[in-house]
Formats: sequence, C-alpha cells, structure tokens
Amino acid sequence: MSQTLIKQSIAASFIASRQKTLQLAEPLSEADMQIQAEDFASPGKWHLAHSTWFYEEFILRALGFESTFAEPYRYLFNSYYEAVGQRQPQKRRGLISRPSLQEILDYRQEIDSALLAAIESGLDEQLLNLLALGIQHEQQHQELFLMDILFNLSHNPLNPAYVSHELPSNLQLLNGHQVNSDEALNHPNYCSPAGQSDMQNFSGGLVHIGHHAADSEFCFDNERPAHQVYLAPFGLAKHLVTNADWIAFIEDSGYHNPLLWLADGWKMAKQEQWEMPLYWQTSDLLINNGSDGKSYMAYQLEGLQPLNLAAPVCHISFFEADAYARWAGKRLPTEAEWEFAAASQSCQEGGLGEAGEVLMPQPTNTPTTNKQSLQQIYGQVWQWTASPYVAYPGFKISSGAVGEYNGKFMNGQYVLRGSSFATPLNHARISYRNFFYPHQRWQFSGLRLAA
Amino acid sequence: MSQTLIKQSIAASFIASRQKTLQLAEPLSEADMQIQAEDFASPGKWHLAHSTWFYEEFILRALGFESTFAEPYRYLFNSYYEAVGQRQPQKRRGLISRPSLQEILDYRQEIDSALLAAIESGLDEQLLNLLALGIQHEQQHQELFLMDILFNLSHNPLNPAYVSHELPSNLQLLNGHQVNSDEALNHPNYCSPAGQSDMQNFSGGLVHIGHHAADSEFCFDNERPAHQVYLAPFGLAKHLVTNADWIAFIEDSGYHNPLLWLADGWKMAKQEQWEMPLYWQTSDLLINNGSDGKSYMAYQLEGLQPLNLAAPVCHISFFEADAYARWAGKRLPTEAEWEFAAASQSCQEGGLGEAGEVLMPQPTNTPTTNKQSLQQIYGQVWQWTASPYVAYPGFKISSGAVGEYNGKFMNGQYVLRGSSFATPLNHARISYRNFFYPHQRWQFSGLRLAA
Amino acid sequence: MSQTLIKQSIAASFIASRQKTLQLAEPLSEADMQIQAEDFASPGKWHLAHSTWFYEEFILRALGFESTFAEPYRYLFNSYYEAVGQRQPQKRRGLISRPSLQEILDYRQEIDSALLAAIESGLDEQLLNLLALGIQHEQQHQELFLMDILFNLSHNPLNPAYVSHELPSNLQLLNGHQVNSDEALNHPNYCSPAGQSDMQNFSGGLVHIGHHAADSEFCFDNERPAHQVYLAPFGLAKHLVTNADWIAFIEDSGYHNPLLWLADGWKMAKQEQWEMPLYWQTSDLLINNGSDGKSYMAYQLEGLQPLNLAAPVCHISFFEADAYARWAGKRLPTEAEWEFAAASQSCQEGGLGEAGEVLMPQPTNTPTTNKQSLQQIYGQVWQWTASPYVAYPGFKISSGAVGEYNGKFMNGQYVLRGSSFATPLNHARISYRNFFYPHQRWQFSGLRLAA
Amino acid sequence: MSQTLIKQSIAASFIASRQKTLQLAEPLSEADMQIQAEDFASPGKWHLAHSTWFYEEFILRALGFESTFAEPYRYLFNSYYEAVGQRQPQKRRGLISRPSLQEILDYRQEIDSALLAAIESGLDEQLLNLLALGIQHEQQHQELFLMDILFNLSHNPLNPAYVSHELPSNLQLLNGHQVNSDEALNHPNYCSPAGQSDMQNFSGGLVHIGHHAADSEFCFDNERPAHQVYLAPFGLAKHLVTNADWIAFIEDSGYHNPLLWLADGWKMAKQEQWEMPLYWQTSDLLINNGSDGKSYMAYQLEGLQPLNLAAPVCHISFFEADAYARWAGKRLPTEAEWEFAAASQSCQEGGLGEAGEVLMPQPTNTPTTNKQSLQQIYGQVWQWTASPYVAYPGFKISSGAVGEYNGKFMNGQYVLRGSSFATPLNHARISYRNFFYPHQRWQFSGLRLAA
Repeated sequence: MSQTLIKQSIAASFIASRQKTLQLAEPLSEADMQIQAEDFASPGKWHLAHSTWFYEEFILRALGFESTFAEPYRYLFNSYYEAVGQRQPQKRRGLISRPSLQEILDYRQEIDSALLAAIESGLDEQLLNLLALGIQHEQQHQELFLMDILFNLSHNPLNPAYVSHELPSNLQLLNGHQVNSDEALNHPNYCSPAGQSDMQNFSGGLVHIGHHAADSEFCFDNERPAHQVYLAPFGLAKHLVTNADWIAFIEDSGYHNPLLWLADGWKMAKQEQWEMPLYWQTSDLLINNGSDGKSYMAYQLEGLQPLNLAAPVCHISFFEADAYARWAGKRLPTEAEWEFAAASQSCQEGGLGEAGEVLMPQPTNTPTTNKQSLQQIYGQVWQWTASPYVAYPGFKISSGAVGEYNGKFMNGQYVLRGSSFATPLNHARISYRNFFYPHQRWQFSGLRLAA
Repeated sequence: MSQTLIKQSIAASFIASRQKTLQLAEPLSEADMQIQAEDFASPGKWHLAHSTWFYEEFILRALGFESTFAEPYRYLFNSYYEAVGQRQPQKRRGLISRPSLQEILDYRQEIDSALLAAIESGLDEQLLNLLALGIQHEQQHQELFLMDILFNLSHNPLNPAYVSHELPSNLQLLNGHQVNSDEALNHPNYCSPAGQSDMQNFSGGLVHIGHHAADSEFCFDNERPAHQVYLAPFGLAKHLVTNADWIAFIEDSGYHNPLLWLADGWKMAKQEQWEMPLYWQTSDLLINNGSDGKSYMAYQLEGLQPLNLAAPVCHISFFEADAYARWAGKRLPTEAEWEFAAASQSCQEGGLGEAGEVLMPQPTNTPTTNKQSLQQIYGQVWQWTASPYVAYPGFKISSGAVGEYNGKFMNGQYVLRGSSFATPLNHARISYRNFFYPHQRWQFSGLRLAA
Repeated sequence: MSQTLIKQSIAASFIASRQKTLQLAEPLSEADMQIQAEDFASPGKWHLAHSTWFYEEFILRALGFESTFAEPYRYLFNSYYEAVGQRQPQKRRGLISRPSLQEILDYRQEIDSALLAAIESGLDEQLLNLLALGIQHEQQHQELFLMDILFNLSHNPLNPAYVSHELPSNLQLLNGHQVNSDEALNHPNYCSPAGQSDMQNFSGGLVHIGHHAADSEFCFDNERPAHQVYLAPFGLAKHLVTNADWIAFIEDSGYHNPLLWLADGWKMAKQEQWEMPLYWQTSDLLINNGSDGKSYMAYQLEGLQPLNLAAPVCHISFFEADAYARWAGKRLPTEAEWEFAAASQSCQEGGLGEAGEVLMPQPTNTPTTNKQSLQQIYGQVWQWTASPYVAYPGFKISSGAVGEYNGKFMNGQYVLRGSSFATPLNHARISYRNFFYPHQRWQFSGLRLAA
Repeated sequence: MSQTLIKQSIAASFIASRQKTLQLAEPLSEADMQIQAEDFASPGKWHLAHSTWFYEEFILRALGFESTFAEPYRYLFNSYYEAVGQRQPQKRRGLISRPSLQEILDYRQEIDSALLAAIESGLDEQLLNLLALGIQHEQQHQELFLMDILFNLSHNPLNPAYVSHELPSNLQLLNGHQVNSDEALNHPNYCSPAGQSDMQNFSGGLVHIGHHAADSEFCFDNERPAHQVYLAPFGLAKHLVTNADWIAFIEDSGYHNPLLWLADGWKMAKQEQWEMPLYWQTSDLLINNGSDGKSYMAYQLEGLQPLNLAAPVCHISFFEADAYARWAGKRLPTEAEWEFAAASQSCQEGGLGEAGEVLMPQPTNTPTTNKQSLQQIYGQVWQWTASPYVAYPGFKISSGAVGEYNGKFMNGQYVLRGSSFATPLNHARISYRNFFYPHQRWQFSGLRLAA
C-alpha cells in the first residue's frame, strides 16, 4: 500500500471507532450517562471522555499537543495510571456533572481533529502502535459502556430500556419469550447434565498458546509471549450452557447446596443472597390448568423481557459457573484448552473476520451445519475458564505508562475467552484474554463445560 | 375578604412558592440536578418532583385526582411516609435518570393546574391546612435544594459555582475577600473570647414558649403546644460567632484538644479528620513581607471564594459549635432561652415581615443602630442550640400520613433557631424549630453564644 | 464522730466495695472474665483492674504513691480519660491476656493496702471526695460487671449460667416459669393497654429537681445543681410494664408496625432484626390439646430460663420502650416527672435505706399494701425516661481529670431512673441519672408509663 | 513388619503428634489461649479442641463411638465442614470460655484413649488413611497454633513473649541483634539487587510435578495427581531474601512506589498503611557519632527482639513479595519451578528426614558447604510462589466430608512451598502445597527470587 492509502486506512479505523462510541450513546440522555450505581460501573459520560483522554495522554501529549481542556481533564479522566498522576476517585466519577456532555463532545471533536492531523503528518512506529492500542482501548470501552449502562439503569424500578422496541434499529439483541419452569425442563434446548456430554474431544499434548510475535495483528501485552503448555486429553462442550440448563440447576437447589461451591463463592452467594443470575426476576404464577411454576424474566438492554430458554445463560459470576460445572459433573476448561480447541476449528463460528460492520452482531441460536465442531465461540457470551489471570511465562509489560494497562491487574481474577454479542466484531481474537473477578456478574459472561 | 379574594390570595402563595423552586433550578443543568454525593444529599431533580408529589398525595388524591404520572411517582418520590407505602431508597435517588427533567417539569405543570382548579372549586378547611403545609414544605425544600446542590457540586474538583458572578442576578450571597490568619486576629470583627461577652442579659423566669393556638399564622405541629418553661437568668451574645472568631479557635488548637469536646464529637472529629468548617480550604502562603500565615478559602454557592472574616461562621456541626462555646468559656443557649430572648426584641433584625419578596435575603453585616439588642436573628445562619429535639409537653402529632412529618424524627437531633440567608423570607418565625444531627454540617448553620 | 470512728467508717465502706467486686467474680473462671463479645462489653478482668486503677490514678498518685504495676497499667486500664493520656482501645480490652487474673488480684491487694494506709494517715477533703467517688465508681462497675458478663457469656451457644442453681447462694435473681402466649394474655399480671391506666396523678407545677447542695449525701456532678422545672399535671403508672404486657405488644405486631416507632428506632429494629427483647428466645410449640402458641425463654444470669410473666420486662432499648408506650396510648415520663413523683412517695418501695447489705436485692413481685403509691421504684429494672441526657442548667463539671467522668457523654443518650436488681443497694438515690444510648439493650432496663 | 509392630508404630505417631500439641500449649495460660484478635486467628484453646474433634468426627464416629462431649462439641469445634453441619462462627471462637481448658484436656484424654483402643482393635485401610490425615491435620494446627498465638499476643502492648528467655528450653527460634539501617546496607548478608543474581540455573523442559501415586508417603489430595508441566529454562536464587535485603527495599521507597505493585496490592498497602513486614517496629535513633538511622525491632515468639539482618525476611504478604521481586528486577518462581528445582538437589538442606524429633528445628544461617545448590529449602520460612492455588489437572477431591479439606479453597490464594521453622519436621515434603491469600501476613512466609 502507498503511504497515503495506509494513512487513509488508519484514519478510517480511528474514525469508525470514534463513531461507534457516539452511536452507542445516542439513545441516552445526559442524565442516563451521568449516573453511577456502584464504584465499578462508570457513567456513560465518563467513558466518552476517558476514551478520548487516552489518545491525548499517550499520543498527542508526546507530540507536544495539549487540548484546551487538558489540565482538569487529565485529573478527571485518568482511570488508573499512577505514572500519569493523581485522579478522580473511581467511585466518584458519577459526581462530575460538569463538564457537561456538550463540553465532552467538544473535547472529543478537538482531539479527533488533532489526531487526524497527526495521522496525516505521519506517526512513527511507536505512536502508530499506541494509536492501535487506543482504538482497541476504545473498543473495550464500547462493551464496558453497554455493561455499565445496563447496570446503572437496572437500579431504576421502572426497568427502563436502553433501546426501544418501537424504533427501527440495527440493534438486535438477545430476545426471548416468557415460559414457566415446566416448559424449561421440557425444552429441546435444555440439556440434562447427562446430555451435556455432547462434547468434542481433543488429544492435547505439548501445544503453543498465546499470540505469535510474527503475527502482525494487534494484541495486548498480556497475550504474549507465545509459549508451550502441556495439555492432557480433554473434551469441550460444543454448545454454551443455556438459560434452560440454568433453570434446572436452580430447581435442583444449586444455589442452596454448599457442597457444590468454592468456599469463597458460597460465602458470596449467601452474603449477596444470590438465587439466580444477575438481572433475572421471577414471580410465582398459577397456571390456568392448575399446575404452577415460576416465570422467569430478565432485565436486559431492551428492558425487562421474558427469558429466552434457548439463549446462553448470561450475567453469571465465576463462582456460579464453577458451581454449575460441579453440579453437572463437569468442570470449566483452562484457557489453554479453550485456545487450543478454538484454534483447531476449521471455521470459527460467530462472525470473526466478516465483512460489513454492524453495530452489534446477531446471536446465532441456529446450530450451524457442522455438528462436529465447537459452536458459539464468539459473539454470544464470554466464557469463563478455570484459569486465574496471571502472566504468561516470560511476560514483559509494555514500556511507559501504558505498561499499567494489563500487568498490574494480574491478581485474583479469572480469564474469560471468546467474545460477547456486545464485543465489537473486529475486537475478538483467538488469543484474547478477558478477565474479571470471580464474584463479578455485570459483564456478559456465560460458560462452556469441559471434561 | 371576599371568598374570591381569599382564593386569589391562596393561589398567589401557591404560585409564588412553585415559581421560586423553578427559579432556584434555573442555573443548573439536568446533570447538576441528577447527582447525589451522599445518602442524605438528594438530587435537585428529586426535590422538584417530591415537592410536587406532596401536593398530589395529600391533597389531590383526597379529591379523587390522580395525575397521569401517579403510579410510579408515588414510589419514586415518596420521601419517608410509611403510611403511604414502599419507596425508592433514599441513597438511590440519584440513580433515577428517568423520568427526565422534562417529564418532571410536565408533572409539575399537571399538578399545578389541578391544584389551582381545586383552589378555585374551594377546598375545605382540612385541605386548606394541608395546602398551607404543602407550601411550607416546598419552602423547606427550597433551602434543602440549595444545601444539597452545594454539597453535591462540592465533590467536583473544579469547584463549580451554582451562580456565576458574570450574570446580573438578584442572588446576592455571602461574599468575602482573601485574608491570612494574622489579619484575622487583628480584624475588628474578631472578638476575643473575653470580648465575646458583648451580651444582652435576660432575667428569665416562668415564660411561655411555642406557638400559641390562638395565633392564626401557620406553624408545624412540633412548635405546639405553647407551654411554660422556667428559665434562670441568662445572657445571649448580640452577634453571631464570625469566621474571624473561628480562625482563632483553630489557631488555638481547638480541633486538637479533646478536653473541649463531647466524647461523641471528638470521635467524629478524629474519624472525619475535621480541621475546619465544611467547605473551607486552606493553603500555606508566604506573604511578601516575609511573615507567613494560612490563607482560608470557602467553597460556597458562588464557587471557591476567599473567606469573609466578618461573616458569621457557617457549615459547622453541633459538635464544633459546642466545642467552640466551651473554648470560649461560654455555652450554647437552650431553644427556650433563644425564643424568649428573640421575642423580647423590639425589632427583629433580619427581615421578617418585610414587603417585597426577593429570591434570597441579603445578609446584613452592618450592625443596626440599636446596639443594645440581639442582632442577626434571621437571615444569616441557623443557630445551634443546646436543646435536643424532643416533643413539647402535650405534643400531638397531626392526624393522617402527615403525622410522620416531624414527630418521628424526635431522636438524636438538636434544635437550631432563627433562619439562614437561604431560608425563604416568609418561612422564618419566632417559634420555628429546625433540627439536624449533631455531626451534620451541610446545612447553613452557625452559632450564637450564651452565658 | 471521733476522727478514728470516721476513718474506720470510711475504711469499712471502701473494704465493703472492694469485697463485693471480688464476690461477683467468684463464680467465674479467668477465661470467663477474659472474653469481650462486642466493643462496649468489657471483660470481667478489665473491670477488676480498672476499678483499682481509678483509686491509684486519682488518689494515690496525688499522694506520690505509684504501685509496682503503675506504668503499663496506666495505659491498659485507663478507660476514657484523655487528660490522663493514651490508653488501650476499648474494643481490644479482651485481648489483654497478660497481666493474668492473679497479677490483677495482686494489684488490687497492693492498692488496697496503700489506700487503707492513706485513709489511716488522713486524707484531705478533696481526696476524701475522690475516695467517695472511687467507691461509687466501683459500685457502678459492679453492675456493669454483671451486664458485661451476661452479654459476653450470651454468645456461647451452651447458654452458660453465671450462677448455678445447685449452689446455696444469696444470689436470688429474677426467676420464672415457662408459659405459652395464650397463658400470657390471660395472666393476672398482664395489663391490657386500657388497664394500664392504673396511674397515680400528680399536679405538677414549678418543682425542684436535682441534688441539693446542702445534702451531704454523695452525688455525681451530673445531678447538680438543683434547679426549678415547670411540670404540667401528669400521671405515672404504679407498676412497671411486665413481660406479659410485652408479649401482648409482640403479638399485636408491635415490632412490625413502623407507625409506632421513631424513625431511628425503626431503622435499628429492621437492621438488627429485633423481634423481642434482648436475650429472649422463642420456639413454636404444639400444645397437647391441639392449640398452639409460642414458648418464651429468657437467657439471664442463671442461664436459659422460662420467662416470668409477672416480672418487669428487661433488656429493652429506649426505642422499644418508646414504641411500646405509643402502642399503649401513653408516653414515657420525663426525668423531672419521675423524680418529682418518686420524691413524693411516703415510702419508696424497693429497699433504699434498708439495713443489712445483701449481695443483691430480691425483686418484689408482691404488691405492697399501699395501693395508692408508685411501686417498684428501685431494685427491679432501670426505667427509661423521655429525657435526653443533657446538662442541668448551671452544670459545672468537676475540676481535674475526673471532670471527664460524666459531662462529656451528654449527647445522644437518654436518662434512666430508679435502679435495677443488680444495682448495689446503697448506690441508688432519688436524683440519680443513669444514661444509655437509645439502641442499647444490654443494661437491666425496663419502663414505666406516663400520661 | 508384624501387625503388632505396625500398630505400635501407628500408635507412636499418633501419640507423638498429640503430645507435641500439648507441649506447644505449655508456656501459655488459659487466658492466652482464649483470646482471638481477628476472625482468622483462632484461639489456642480452639486448636486443642478442634484437632481432637477431627479424630472423633471422621474416625471414631464411623466406629460408632461418641465421646461424652460429642454433641455440643460437634457444633463448637467443627471448623468449616458443611457436610457435618452448622458450627460456631469462626469470628466468635474466642468467646467460648466454656468448656474450660481443663474440660478440653479431658476431652483430648477421652478421645486419645478411644483412638488408641481402636488402633489396637485394628482399623481398616480407609480409617487408617483418615488417621494419617488426622495426624497431618494436627501437625498443620501445630504451626497454626504458633501463628495464631503470636498474632493474638501481638495485640498486647506489653509485647509478651510466648517463650521466656530465662527458661531452659529446646525452643530455639530466630534470634537477632539490634542494628541501624546503615549497618543493614553494609551487612555481608545484604545482597544488593544486582548481587541477588547468585542463582542456580535449570534447563526446564517437560517435567513431572506432584505426588506420585506409587509413593506410599502421605500426601494431601491437592498434591495429586502427578502430571506433566512444561518449563522454560529458569534460575532460582540459592538463598532466601534476608531482613537486610528487605531494609534496602524499604529505604528505596519500596512501600511508596505504586509502579512496583499489583493494583490490588497497592490498594491494600495504602489501606493498611503497610511500611514494613508485619511485627516489625521502628524508631528513629540519634546515633552517638551524629549520624542517624532507624532501628528495627521485630515482635516474635520470644517477644520484641532486635532484627536479625542475616535471617530470612518473614511475615510478608504475597503482594509485598511480588513488589520486592519487581523492585529487584526478578520475579517469583512458579510452584512447578520450585518443586522441580528442589527435587533436583542432591541434599535437601533444612532437615527433612532427620532422625531425632525436636520441638522446633533450628534455623540454619550458616551456609552449607555445597555452594552450588539451593539453600534454605525447608525449616526457615515458607516461600511464596507466583502460582495461584488451583487444582492440578485431573484433581479429584477425597470422598466423604474430608473432601472439603482442600478443594473448596482453590480460589484467590497463592501457593507457598518449602516449610518454616515452625513446621513439624516430618510434615514437610517436596510436593507440599501450602496456600494463603495474597494479603495475609501472619504466617511464617518469606521469598526466594527467580529469573
């Protein structure tokens, strides 16, 4: 490619990423983007500003550029970079009513112009790498934006919808219809624990894991270095655990049997009074014909909706996933097993590498024709693994302040693999390591069993 | 007066109260009115809705009227009325991004129309009393609105101003100029503890306290019944304790001497690391002439401002007021002493009963000509008394749900008397009993010494 | 009296007080006296040491005497005297396994000898006053000792008894027999709310309250000065509210009706899940004849015992007392009403001034012959009043470090009057002001209604 | 061996373990063994009872035997076995003053007799395995006993010694002498970060880790199954990091540089105000010659002692160990690296398999002659590894209630390898996996660097 074409391509990626963020914000009022229900759930407005600050701090500042907003914003919109300096406490991000949304949109505009000018002028390789990081960073915040908006709105007893059903929209999210629990157990998508053995087997051995240095595709530092891991033979379920499966776990007292749980998980489940996944609601129903059962609803981006039994279970913690696997007589896969298995698929279902950006991918409940392979690798829900999030052997953090991006969080969290319906399409990859604490549930997380 | 004139007068009071609330909201964005920095500091938007809900719940509902918003709002905007039913938890009022500000303004409009129609149709005496209560209630929330806005905005490191200096405005609040602590001690408004004995003496005896049943002026149930109290002779300071006085307390290690404090107050002061009143900030300065001193600033409705030494100290807790009084060799007055003394003044300085509503009264730093009498009774800062907030002998709570208005809070709080610069002019009266917990500081509270 | 006789009398009082403390400790192991279940419930061993330290710190130190234990003990056994210096945090008193119980007994011995020698040598008036204070202080700790032992042992699921029934003992505490709730409502000692109007009426007026300066009997500084209070006419129940009465409150949903409670009380009751007085236990019973009811038991110094319906209710908070009174259509008396009424009784029932010290007074369930007068003034349970614990007009704290004894606690607490079965006989008096926070329940507290 | 000899040998192991526990308790009073300073630090008395209960619950109960104490003790002294039933909350173990120490000693006696009789009668293989587990369990509690006693006594400002220096004793613990920090940096045992590269190199490869099924030696379920792990080449420091090393970290602002820490570790360090290892104390000294420096002392089982610069640093959290390693330009080893390296040593220094039980091993500060090999593998301090404590591939929990022994704790903790001076000699082994949470510091933990 000519230099001009390369620059145009870079600029296009940057612009696409910037526009997607604004598209996500479109259905929301400033008030919707101001609120913060818990320390961890940042306001939407903060995401708009922080993803912008990242470009200013790590690229434009290196070029000597400072926006007209630079000084207070450096304090307000730094997330956790100690090397950059003091910052607004995370739990108080929701109190920043000023700058206004309009001022933040102006800030975005100013940074966008400056960065496009810088691209046009030509960035050196280090800055190009940081720009790629910035774009990936903004993509991560696009998913975080949806997670946080859902969580923050969920505290409103009116169950407000992020997206309205009335509007024509390319936002086609997980849908469902209302059923009672008897239906659940009879549903074709419900796999009894015995039936969950619809697994693909892998022979394992000494395998390579991680992102190859030779691969020019972007990756985070935590995906490196590629290294060898020895795997014993294992099996992996072809499908994700569904809502129907999960109801069977609930009905079998899964949330009330301490012997299924890790000690920390049991303590958390009791303390938080977990009885079902986050956002599920239930009410006892008397069915016309005299039988009774529970009706499950789920609060989601479209508001409160009847539960879709066939859809993958979502919004579960690692502790719940682990307890479920034990109940099912299975276990969670390690991240190495997952990556090795996923890499071995001829066609990675779920949309990776597809042409034609859509705002959100459509979940594929229809099984693909290839019945022998793993399904639902991407684009449904993140899949908890049994692997604590630690450094790969030989891991080196990136130099500079962006060295704080990943490495310092390598404690107490677990790796999730794949991607969710809310992950930008070109953001997922085979070596991607997402991570959350084992008690967290507001991310779009489900599970795939291993044996 | 003719029935028509009476109705017009009632409608005018109602309209004035409704408009004042909207005027107070004018300088603010929806985001400014969405945030809630602590459990106790409700969002501005909530005040707009709650003061409206009060009229609907206690008057219009009795007339069979329900607004188009009635059902969810009854849950969302009930403050603490158990008899009305369940409600949004106080600490989560800030998460209600929907209804939007516009919807709440529409709600106000609908209730206003309905209530004005009801007034026109004629209200019975009970409902007229409830309307008077509703107006007083909204006035209380006007002061609360300013308290809460100040508190909520104070968590923004940009120190945003509620009102801008640039705008022509009838909002004339407490102003100041920057001084260092040497200046403070030499300031004419600084009264050394010895000098604070500029007191007016009262002989006491068996006196009447509380609101007379025969008085047709509105009062809350907690101001009744009028009753006899025996008072020993006492003196009351003619002026409020000033910022300059308070600096002397600070500089004499007032915040570091446990022997000056109540045990609970000392515990709180240590725990919260109190070193000065709420909203004060300080920085060490090197003055030109080589001497050094501290410069005090105060965050207030106009933003961060140099401290006005002559102004009454504001934003102090009961614990601080009590410690100050002990340091000064004085004590806090009882509420009965305060009321008796205030009632005995020929002219109650501070603006009660003045014609011409202004948005906020102007603080009067200029001493009045009558040097013998108590100054600054109203319109400056609320004055802590030594009296726990308890029922007057023979107290009867109002019947109905509004019985929860005052009585159930009669524990653990102290009475404040007078009024502040933020109190609506026609809201203050001699028997008025304001009350806060002894550790609270976000109200506009100061003190007057007694001996 | 001759000087010798006076000295002998003083020494005898001192010795008696010292011996009573040891008698109370006798049934307990060192382990029993080591434990501390909550911050506020000091270990028994600590009481033995602290009551000794008080004599050393405030009397012997003034005479130049220091025990061989003085230095570390000054830190370890100072309770809350800021003027004395730093001290072991209250919540960590239970961690002081060394000094051992034996070392503390040795310490007591050394201080006793030194103090008796000092008495023999002659103490000046100030020190004599401090000695009297020290004796009263130790008496207070005798009751606290029993409160704390009961509380600390109550966390043992074995329900251990402080005193065994098998031992011959002069410890005759409140007894009972098991009943179900049907019995309760039919019990002759149960007074229906209507029936509780068995009251003695008082005309009130301008009365004197507090301890007279001329009275040579000991009093604490908080009982002074005597002063005038105006009382409107009032009535006081002749008897204390009984366990049978309390069951009626429970069965009428007293703990589930927010309209009966102060807001702070309701919050506390929900948070702590109060359903009955502290130490009560209940279990559902199926009675032989098919009816069912609840059986109430109470954990007390003799271990878990069936509830005595006729006995005064004990271990209730101010919040519960206040809610009960509202439920009964009555109110709590003020402390001035209580003192004035009690002073007017020809014979103050309950044992004041009786000859013959016994370790603990016997509760008198048998009504006395004088049906017109207040019963159970002393020696049963402390009686909550409606009066916040504040300074009397003209209150002066004692000089020196003992000035911290009472004054600094004058916030947020309520006055209780009378005395309990655990109060040393010669410790109660008409002007005595006991005080606790409104949520506290581990003291021996009940209530008497007023109207 | 004949059956008789085998039985005698089993009985001897059992008796030895039982006696060692009592020996550890000997220097302590009942009060010393009653206290519990934090939830996690059980009272000494509880350890005596719990280690006894374990034999009763899992062996004697299976034989139909119940002690005279069985019922309440099953509740009181069950630690965390959900399958056994409800239990005394961990944080309230310190409140169980009854049963008394004597009763618990009687309980031990009764269980010992019954178990010896059962051994004599012959136990089947399953029960023999459970007996071996019971002995290992008691050994773990011997170290826990010392950890907890040290922690509980450490809250006493008198710095009481567990063992007195005056007594002739076979308890020879880590000693020291007082130095200032200048000395530290010049000490021969101080290794500058550069100097810490005194490492032994290992080539790695596909290695076997874990306890071999064929090995008849006891192991816990979490050490199984043996399995293959691929290791890249690595180096391991021959010596443990010393106190002198640690002082260099402190003086280089190690506790004040967030870039050295994991995010969770930094949060914890700030919150808990960590400035040095647990139990260290410091005071500024003015040295005679005018230079100044800090004097470090350490509270340990002998009381407060000058810090021994040459001794391995002890009582550090994983977070501190990790930050230290990053500061030193190294890293922590994985548990597989540690095990592989230790297994490769010709002579595992530290006393494994030595004849002649002593109460506690003597730390060996004297370097062994073999300068090429790893030193201080056992008997000094446990060594943090970088490995989260998770199940080995193919891990199966033991059947029955003892399945809760290890598996349910596999979350959020890190593996430590080796053993400490307080580990019973015959308790350490090459595949042993100790584990603690990354913030915990009360265990005898240090670190060995890797590269």
